Amino acid sequence: MPIRVGVIGAGVMGADHIRNLTTAVNGAEVTFVADLDAGRAAAAAPPSARTTTDPSELINSSEVDAVIIASHDSTHAGLVLECFEAMTPVLCEKPLAPTILESLDVVEAEADILAATGARLLSMGFMRRFDPGYTALREATRVRSNGEPLLVHCTSRTATAGPGASSESAITNSAIHEFDIIPWLLGTPITEVSWQAGRSSRQSTGDLQDPALMLLRTADGTLATLELFLNAQYGYTTRCEVVSESGTAALPEPAALLVHREGQQRSVIPADWRPRFADAYRLQLQAWISALERGDTTPLATGEDGLRASQVGQAMIRSLHSDGAFTKVIY
Amino acid sequence: MPIRVGVIGAGVMGADHIRNLTTAVNGAEVTFVADLDAGRAAAAAPPSARTTTDPSELINSSEVDAVIIASHDSTHAGLVLECFEAMTPVLCEKPLAPTILESLDVVEAEADILAATGARLLSMGFMRRFDPGYTALREATRVRSNGEPLLVHCTSRTATAGPGASSESAITNSAIHEFDIIPWLLGTPITEVSWQAGRSSRQSTGDLQDPALMLLRTADGTLATLELFLNAQYGYTTRCEVVSESGTAALPEPAALLVHREGQQRSVIPADWRPRFADAYRLQLQAWISALERGDTTPLATGEDGLRASQVGQAMIRSLHSDGAFTKVIY
Amino acid sequence: MPIRVGVIGAGVMGADHIRNLTTAVNGAEVTFVADLDAGRAAAAAPPSARTTTDPSELINSSEVDAVIIASHDSTHAGLVLECFEAMTPVLCEKPLAPTILESLDVVEAEADILAATGARLLSMGFMRRFDPGYTALREATRVRSNGEPLLVHCTSRTATAGPGASSESAITNSAIHEFDIIPWLLGTPITEVSWQAGRSSRQSTGDLQDPALMLLRTADGTLATLELFLNAQYGYTTRCEVVSESGTAALPEPAALLVHREGQQRSVIPADWRPRFADAYRLQLQAWISALERGDTTPLATGEDGLRASQVGQAMIRSLHSDGAFTKVIY
Amino acid sequence: MPIRVGVIGAGVMGADHIRNLTTAVNGAEVTFVADLDAGRAAAAAPPSARTTTDPSELINSSEVDAVIIASHDSTHAGLVLECFEAMTPVLCEKPLAPTILESLDVVEAEADILAATGARLLSMGFMRRFDPGYTALREATRVRSNGEPLLVHCTSRTATAGPGASSESAITNSAIHEFDIIPWLLGTPITEVSWQAGRSSRQSTGDLQDPALMLLRTADGTLATLELFLNAQYGYTTRCEVVSESGTAALPEPAALLVHREGQQRSVIPADWRPRFADAYRLQLQAWISALERGDTTPLATGEDGLRASQVGQAMIRSLHSDGAFTKVIY
Repeated sequence: MPIRVGVIGAGVMGADHIRNLTTAVNGAEVTFVADLDAGRAAAAAPPSARTTTDPSELINSSEVDAVIIASHDSTHAGLVLECFEAMTPVLCEKPLAPTILESLDVVEAEADILAATGARLLSMGFMRRFDPGYTALREATRVRSNGEPLLVHCTSRTATAGPGASSESAITNSAIHEFDIIPWLLGTPITEVSWQAGRSSRQSTGDLQDPALMLLRTADGTLATLELFLNAQYGYTTRCEVVSESGTAALPEPAALLVHREGQQRSVIPADWRPRFADAYRLQLQAWISALERGDTTPLATGEDGLRASQVGQAMIRSLHSDGAFTKVIY
Repeated sequence: MPIRVGVIGAGVMGADHIRNLTTAVNGAEVTFVADLDAGRAAAAAPPSARTTTDPSELINSSEVDAVIIASHDSTHAGLVLECFEAMTPVLCEKPLAPTILESLDVVEAEADILAATGARLLSMGFMRRFDPGYTALREATRVRSNGEPLLVHCTSRTATAGPGASSESAITNSAIHEFDIIPWLLGTPITEVSWQAGRSSRQSTGDLQDPALMLLRTADGTLATLELFLNAQYGYTTRCEVVSESGTAALPEPAALLVHREGQQRSVIPADWRPRFADAYRLQLQAWISALERGDTTPLATGEDGLRASQVGQAMIRSLHSDGAFTKVIY
Repeated sequence: MPIRVGVIGAGVMGADHIRNLTTAVNGAEVTFVADLDAGRAAAAAPPSARTTTDPSELINSSEVDAVIIASHDSTHAGLVLECFEAMTPVLCEKPLAPTILESLDVVEAEADILAATGARLLSMGFMRRFDPGYTALREATRVRSNGEPLLVHCTSRTATAGPGASSESAITNSAIHEFDIIPWLLGTPITEVSWQAGRSSRQSTGDLQDPALMLLRTADGTLATLELFLNAQYGYTTRCEVVSESGTAALPEPAALLVHREGQQRSVIPADWRPRFADAYRLQLQAWISALERGDTTPLATGEDGLRASQVGQAMIRSLHSDGAFTKVIY
Repeated sequence: MPIRVGVIGAGVMGADHIRNLTTAVNGAEVTFVADLDAGRAAAAAPPSARTTTDPSELINSSEVDAVIIASHDSTHAGLVLECFEAMTPVLCEKPLAPTILESLDVVEAEADILAATGARLLSMGFMRRFDPGYTALREATRVRSNGEPLLVHCTSRTATAGPGASSESAITNSAIHEFDIIPWLLGTPITEVSWQAGRSSRQSTGDLQDPALMLLRTADGTLATLELFLNAQYGYTTRCEVVSESGTAALPEPAALLVHREGQQRSVIPADWRPRFADAYRLQLQAWISALERGDTTPLATGEDGLRASQVGQAMIRSLHSDGAFTKVIY
């Protein structure tokens, strides 16, 4: 019997999860879709699925074995707690919550359930952990074929910042992927961070320094750089290079047709994260569903991972407000 | 309800199909596995599936909605005909049959069924049609953004020739992929071919000229080259470049970690077709299953496609025995 | 004292040689420039050089130690013979002569001088022999680090065919570079060739099949392919890949700025041969001048090399007129 | 008449200059070589050149029109001043002097001569300004085809640190190239810098933090990062990427044969700066010699450029001793 999944939030992200679950993942069925906008829920739902504007109805439905939360960030923590009450496994898109306090509440609630029942209900949607490039990079780093890692360089660019983006939201919504992936790659937590402003693009509006440069140090002293550029205009780029004692390893650029035309060699750059991380999203969902089928512990990022990434983000925001001073992460 | 698939042949190819159907394709379930070697069937089958050494039992089982044939080439035609009798949709690995006569039998039998019932039962496993690179290359060619295509260059290399490989089997088993993909890319059939021998590798044994160089002309005069090298030793490479009037487009090389080590920039080359065409196999199976679910005509290659590819192969073999003379393809 | 060079022909090629000799080569001075068009000679000549419309005047001038012939192909042989009479070292642009008979005359005349005086006066401008990529490819092939070479793939594309280009002139003027470089790479002569027509570009006018595909076999059985495409429109491309028993080696693509813009990763393709082979021309001239300074035998291609390349071209033209039949090269 | 050059210092750098001047640059002749080690001078000098262990003899020789200083850093300033006294044009390898005070002396002395005679005698060997990649990158930045530059990322790695290397010498000897090239690329001076330590390689000995990460801000707010890694082991890498408002441009990786062997696609990485910057050194020397021939002002970096790069280095060293604090550059 397939795992019956209810999806809360039928925006771009939720619709993509629905599409993956119904056309690219084995063992799943989308039975319920919730969105405040009933029309959007109906448009994204498979024909056989129910829809609702009330996420609680979905969470507590007997037709739902597991829940995906892809609604507005501000709703994440509350909905996860509802899933806990229903004892329903839940995959929550990042971030776990807009504030550390709310994230802590969720993590503590899950710890209580784990202590009482042995069940670990929460998975976090840090999909890069399932990207084939990142997994190869982590494995190469783990086996130390180039010796100890010393430096990590990350680049994260999107074509256009979302409406209302600010320097703070850039940290909590975008850079959070690197706050998760850097300790995951290196096997050691981030201990202090620094946020540096440079010249800002004229495409940037409001309170958004863009690009920003962030520095991160891990417990074993490894230094990481992150260029975060939301209005890069030309397209979407994610890079990561691990510099080790005797060599380096870097993510491959996505492969596309190599075209020669009008005096140039050209290949297409992804327009946004969807083509770039299509495999990662698909493989993450498959891993989640397969683990649910087998009754295994989730192989995805956990609530603690989500909390830690947010804690790094909080330290980064404090650095932003302290003129870039290196700032300790408080876990 | 998932499509219940029976898989005949639990070798490398069959086992890969089973793995894909159970871990990477939506809407399918493997319920039955047949192999002459009972142990091999048991090893490849999912726990819930039945196994048998008798493919006919599988084909005629009420627990099977569709069949995949991945057994020895010599069995393909007979098993496809059995599926026709059972009115069961079947995905047959290439080639359709070792001889043109057998292939013709199959195609005619399917035409009769189509005429009588409207059902098109047979799909051929020319998976490259689902490779994202090839589909992008076909689309770029179809829209003529570089003008009319004039030349196609294909390269097909494997690390080691299979046991007993000959110049003929290299044509019918390996080059057959290009015999299918070239007309599919260009939208025009291959009309004449030429087989050229050069210096042969000392790794080659028996009656195998390796590498071989093949030339193919299509109905509209486009010329294609194919280097086929089975004992290339270093790894697996598939290339395709379409040269058009004002530009060219070529398949991307598979992307892998870019490593700097010991004075060299390096990236891993696939060892065989499985990593190279993992996406293609997965997407082909998904397209087949999804079409079966919806009752749509198969989007895969058809029996006629399989027959035509074999007919190109027969002409190539005649050229091989005619000192490389250009030889018409008889359809 | 610098070698005083007279340059005959002040067109694109001659002017480039003058520029190299005066700004990028050590030990040379351009003292005399001849061109039928006096204005063109004056425009190309350095301020201190004399100019003339009479090449014989230049060849016999006491102010000229060595001559470069970059005038029209039809004048090459006659001017080389004049240089021989004057006992002046001469670097002749390819081809040595439009006909084999004329080439033979030149080669025999030089052999007589060599026998009589020990002097080898003629060098041929097959500059690819000095391209860093080709020299690295030749060295890799020579040391057999990938085992014996089995196949060679060559691609030669220009943006636009010259006025009056025909299938024959494409062979004698353009493909001649590969007729020289393939035996030079492999250390074995070309013994038979075949010329194949495919679909021709609508940019092609008159009697020009474009692109053409040529096959060449060497004495040891190695097979080579050459795509020659004069109206490729998009730019200038020279490729060469040597496929050997356990690996392959290919020329690097020229490196240019890697730009990300408007959804594409881009780099500039050379517009013509000058940027592509700038190093090769410079290094060839330096090697010629340095050998003249030291009194060494020329390290450039010889008249015999020029003759052999033309003989391959003649065989290719016979194949063109024989419907592509493999045709022996007559040396 | 060729420019007669005297070269002081016949180590790796000096010998390379001699080789270039005698085999790859037009219009020059090496007439005199000085080295404290007479044997080394003799080994590096052309047969026709004189040698000495006394650089003053060389500078004041009537057989020398121009001087290159490639001796120990500590001798640079004194020898440049001697050249000034002799009114001889001089190309000084970086750094101009080990201390700012000495550099200031030199720059002021040159300003006096310039005021008195109109002659600008000093050129600095910041050869990257002549690297074809850097010049293309500067031009692309200058024309603002991607909008305003916002960030620059630099990477500078060598295989092995020289004996006695320290964090300070890494700044004054290696990073100095970027201190020159960043303002040259952007057309705006560096105003403040920060030096960051991470985990240090076990290959590093003594007082050398390796790698180090440096941040630099220019007058218009552009931020630049520099990874400097002297013991990178695998080879030599110089990278530079300019991130602008609507696109990016990056230096090409040096092109080398692309080899497929033993499961990997490989290309050679330069072992040190010589193959990487061979063109840059050659073109810099040619530009210097050609300007001397024509009596033009030097197109190379000036003494002021050398001083400014050293002033950036001094600020970086202060940051190093201030726990990485951003430190103003004092010009």
